[in-house]
Amino acid sequence: MMRNKLVVVVSIILNLVLTIHILYNNSTTWNPTWTNRAAAEAEAAASLSCSGHGRAYVDGLGVLDGHKPPCECNNCYTGKDCSFFVPDCPVDADSGNPLFLEPFWMRNAEGSAVVESGWHRMSYRYSEIGSFVSAELEKIIRELHNVVGNAVTDNRFIIFGTGATQLIAASVHALSQTNSSSLSPSRLVTSVPYYNMYKQQADFFNSADLKFEGDASAWKKSEGNDNMTRVIEMVTSPNNPDGKLKRAVLDGPNVKTIHDCAYYWPYFSPITHPVDEDLSLFSLSKSTGHAGSRFGWALVKDKVVYEKMKRYISLSSMGVSRDTQLHALQLLKVVIGHGGDNIFHFGYGTLKKRWDKLNEIMSMSKRFSLQTIKPEYCNYFKKVRDFTPSYAWVKCERPEDKNCYEIFKEAKITGRNGEWFGSEERFVRLTLIRSQDDFDQLIAMLKKFVSKEAVLVGSI
Amino acid sequence: MMRNKLVVVVSIILNLVLTIHILYNNSTTWNPTWTNRAAAEAEAAASLSCSGHGRAYVDGLGVLDGHKPPCECNNCYTGKDCSFFVPDCPVDADSGNPLFLEPFWMRNAEGSAVVESGWHRMSYRYSEIGSFVSAELEKIIRELHNVVGNAVTDNRFIIFGTGATQLIAASVHALSQTNSSSLSPSRLVTSVPYYNMYKQQADFFNSADLKFEGDASAWKKSEGNDNMTRVIEMVTSPNNPDGKLKRAVLDGPNVKTIHDCAYYWPYFSPITHPVDEDLSLFSLSKSTGHAGSRFGWALVKDKVVYEKMKRYISLSSMGVSRDTQLHALQLLKVVIGHGGDNIFHFGYGTLKKRWDKLNEIMSMSKRFSLQTIKPEYCNYFKKVRDFTPSYAWVKCERPEDKNCYEIFKEAKITGRNGEWFGSEERFVRLTLIRSQDDFDQLIAMLKKFVSKEAVLVGSI
Repeated sequence: MMRNKLVVVVSIILNLVLTIHILYNNSTTWNPTWTNRAAAEAEAAASLSCSGHGRAYVDGLGVLDGHKPPCECNNCYTGKDCSFFVPDCPVDADSGNPLFLEPFWMRNAEGSAVVESGWHRMSYRYSEIGSFVSAELEKIIRELHNVVGNAVTDNRFIIFGTGATQLIAASVHALSQTNSSSLSPSRLVTSVPYYNMYKQQADFFNSADLKFEGDASAWKKSEGNDNMTRVIEMVTSPNNPDGKLKRAVLDGPNVKTIHDCAYYWPYFSPITHPVDEDLSLFSLSKSTGHAGSRFGWALVKDKVVYEKMKRYISLSSMGVSRDTQLHALQLLKVVIGHGGDNIFHFGYGTLKKRWDKLNEIMSMSKRFSLQTIKPEYCNYFKKVRDFTPSYAWVKCERPEDKNCYEIFKEAKITGRNGEWFGSEERFVRLTLIRSQDDFDQLIAMLKKFVSKEAVLVGSI
Repeated sequence: MMRNKLVVVVSIILNLVLTIHILYNNSTTWNPTWTNRAAAEAEAAASLSCSGHGRAYVDGLGVLDGHKPPCECNNCYTGKDCSFFVPDCPVDADSGNPLFLEPFWMRNAEGSAVVESGWHRMSYRYSEIGSFVSAELEKIIRELHNVVGNAVTDNRFIIFGTGATQLIAASVHALSQTNSSSLSPSRLVTSVPYYNMYKQQADFFNSADLKFEGDASAWKKSEGNDNMTRVIEMVTSPNNPDGKLKRAVLDGPNVKTIHDCAYYWPYFSPITHPVDEDLSLFSLSKSTGHAGSRFGWALVKDKVVYEKMKRYISLSSMGVSRDTQLHALQLLKVVIGHGGDNIFHFGYGTLKKRWDKLNEIMSMSKRFSLQTIKPEYCNYFKKVRDFTPSYAWVKCERPEDKNCYEIFKEAKITGRNGEWFGSEERFVRLTLIRSQDDFDQLIAMLKKFVSKEAVLVGSI
C-alpha cells in the first residue's frame, strides 16, 4: 500500500516536472517565426564540412532546382565532398583573395551572422534628408581606426565606395577636375612597382582630364615636370606588390596626393603612425577579408574634394548597396568587439607563420630572393615586429632567368608578372593571403622547386 | 485498490506522453545555433510597428550604443513611434523611391528573409575559374523574363551592375569605344523628355570618346547628322518621366541603341511584346522595389560589347557585391514562386488605385493636365489594361504658369522640374510609387489645390 502510494506520488511529481519543463521551455525560449526558414537553410549549408577543403553556400549551383548546396572545393581539391587531392596540381598564387581570414569568421559564426528582411532599406537613401551612407557604419569605421591607430579620422569626411576600386576612380576623378577646359590633362603618377589598377582605370576610362604618366621618380626628373602641370601622385602604403611603407615622391602646389592604405592593417605591417593625409583609401577586402562584398571607404579632409567624390559615387552607382553596408556593420562589430576573438592577432599570427615557412625555404635558394624590410615598432601590438606583407615579391637572380613569371609557371606556380606592376619581368608576385590549402600547396611546390636547385648546384 | 491502480497507470501513461513529447520535440524541431542571435535581433526590429507610419531597421541609429533600433518615420510623421502627423507638412513627390512594393515584402517575410554567414563568399570571384556573377541569380533572371514575357533572353549574355546606373555608364562607354583615336567623339542622344542621368554621367565623366548631344529628333534634323558621326541613342521605354513606350528615332550603320527598360514591368505598363534588342537594361529597383540594393542587369547580344561592358564593371567596382546578389536571388525566388502571393498583381493593383484617384482629382482641373496613354493588350495579365506609370507628368496649362515646379512647390508639393528632363518648365514630374503615406498626402494636398482652382473659377 505504501509502495503504491509512493509510485503515485513519484509519478505525479514527475508529471509536474515534465509539464513545467514543457511550459517553461515554450514561454522563455524565443521561437523564431519568419526567420526560421532562412536560418535553417543557412545552418544546413554551414553544416556541410566539405572535408575541410571547401565550403557550401546557400546560393550555390543547383539550389534553384531544389538541390542541396554543393561543396565548392579549394584549388586542387575535388570530389563531391572535396576529399580528393589532385596530385601535382598547379598552384594558384595570383589574385589577392584574402581567405586567410575565413577561419576567423567561421569561429565567430554567431557574432557575425546577419538576418536581412525582405523589406530591408528599400529606399535610395538612409533617411528622407539623408545620404547613401549608414550613419552607424560610419561611426564604427571611425572607432575601428581609433582602436587600430592606423588613421586619424578627426576632421575627416568619410565616403563609401563599391570597393576601394571605385574610390580610386572617384578620387582620381575628383582631383583631376578643374573649372578650366583649356588646361592640359592632369598626370597620374605612382612609384614602381605599382598596383596596376591605377593605370588600367586611367587608360580605360579615358577622361579628357587625365593621363597616366607612370613612375613618379621618372616624372620628377623629366622635362614635363615644369611645376605647372597638374600632377596626382598615388602613394600605396604598404605597397602592392612589395609591402613597403611609402611616402610621396613629389610635392609642390601643383601636386595632389592620394594615399591608398588598403594594406595598412596589423596583419601586414607594423602600424608605425596614424595616417594623417588629405585623402586616404581603405577597404573591407583587406581589413576583414571580405573582397566579395565590394566595400571601401575614403577619409577626406577637403570639403570640395569630398563633394566631388560624392558626386562621382552618386553618378556611377548611387552609393553602395545597403545589403553590403548591413553586412559590413555586423562584421566590424565583431572586429572591434571586446572580450572576443581578436582578428588582428589571428591574422598576423597566420601570416607570421606563413612568412617564417617561406623565408626558411627561400633562404635555401640562391636563384630567388625576397623583398626584405626592417622590423619596426608597431603601435598596435606594442612591440617591434616583422613586416608580413600580403605578397612575396620574388626576384629571379640568375641573368638568364629573365622572365620570372614564366620560370615559376613552368614549376606549376602561377604568380603575377612583375611587368604588370610597371617593374621588370625579373620579378614575380606570389600571393600569401589565400586559403591555408593554397598556401600549403605553394610551400610544397616551392620546396620541390628550390630543392631541385640545390641538387643542380650540387651536381655542378 | 482498483482506483489506485488506475491512478498509477494514468500517471505513468502521462509520464510517457510528456517524455515522448520532450524527446520528440528535441529531436525533430530544428534548434537554431549560430543564427539565433541574428534572427532574434531581426525579429525584434521587425516587431516594432512604428504605428504603421515608419519602420525600424537592425542597423538603425544608436544600435552600436546598445539602443533598440529607433522608428524611422515616413514623411510628415514624427514621434518616437511615428504616431504624430505633422499638419500642413510639405509633400515629397520628387524621387522615385519604389516603396509601393514594401507591403508586399512585409507580407512575404518568411520567403524573402536571408541569413548571411560571416564567411559568405569572401572571394573576389564565384569560383576559381569564375566570374563576378552568381550563376543561380543569372538563371533566375532568365526565368523571370520568361514568366513576365518582357524580354527575350535567348542568345543573350547577362551582365550585372551596381544598379542600372552603373550599367548605363558601362553600356555607353562600351559603345563609344573605338580603336581609332582620330575619330570625333560619339554623340549620345535620347528623346525629350528624358531621364537626366544620361546627360549627367556623360558630362561628369567627360570621356574623350563621348559627348552628350541631347534630343534625338533634333539631331536627326541637324547638320551634324552626316550618317558618319557615331551616335548612341538611348531609348527609355517605358519612358521616364512620362511612362510612354518608345522606339528608336535614329537608324543607320553609324547608330547604336541602348534600351533602358527599367520600367518595363507589369506594374507600370502593359507588356505588349518581349524586348528583343541588342542591348537592354533592367533594375531590381523597379522590379522588386529594392532601390537600396543597387542591382541591375543588362541583356547583351554582341560578345564584343559584352566583353567591353564586363571590363568596365570590373575596372570600376570588380563586379557587384555578393551580399546583394544573395539578397536579390532570394527576392526573385519569391517573385517567381508559384502558389504564393503575386507581386505583379499586388503592385499593379496598388498603382491602378492610385491612378484612379489621381485621375479623378485632375479631371476636375483645367489648370493642370496629365499625360494620356491609350490602354493596350498586356501579354502578362492577358487583357487590355491601362498604363499606370511611375510618375505623373503634369503640364501647367495656363500661359502665366510658366514654372510648373514652382507652382506646385508653393502648394507644398515638391515634384521634379520638367527642365531636368530636357523639357519645358511648364512640366513637373510627380512620383506615384512611394509609400502609401506619401501618396495619401499627395492626394490630400492636390485635392486642396485643385478645389481652390474651382473656387477661383467660381469667383470670376
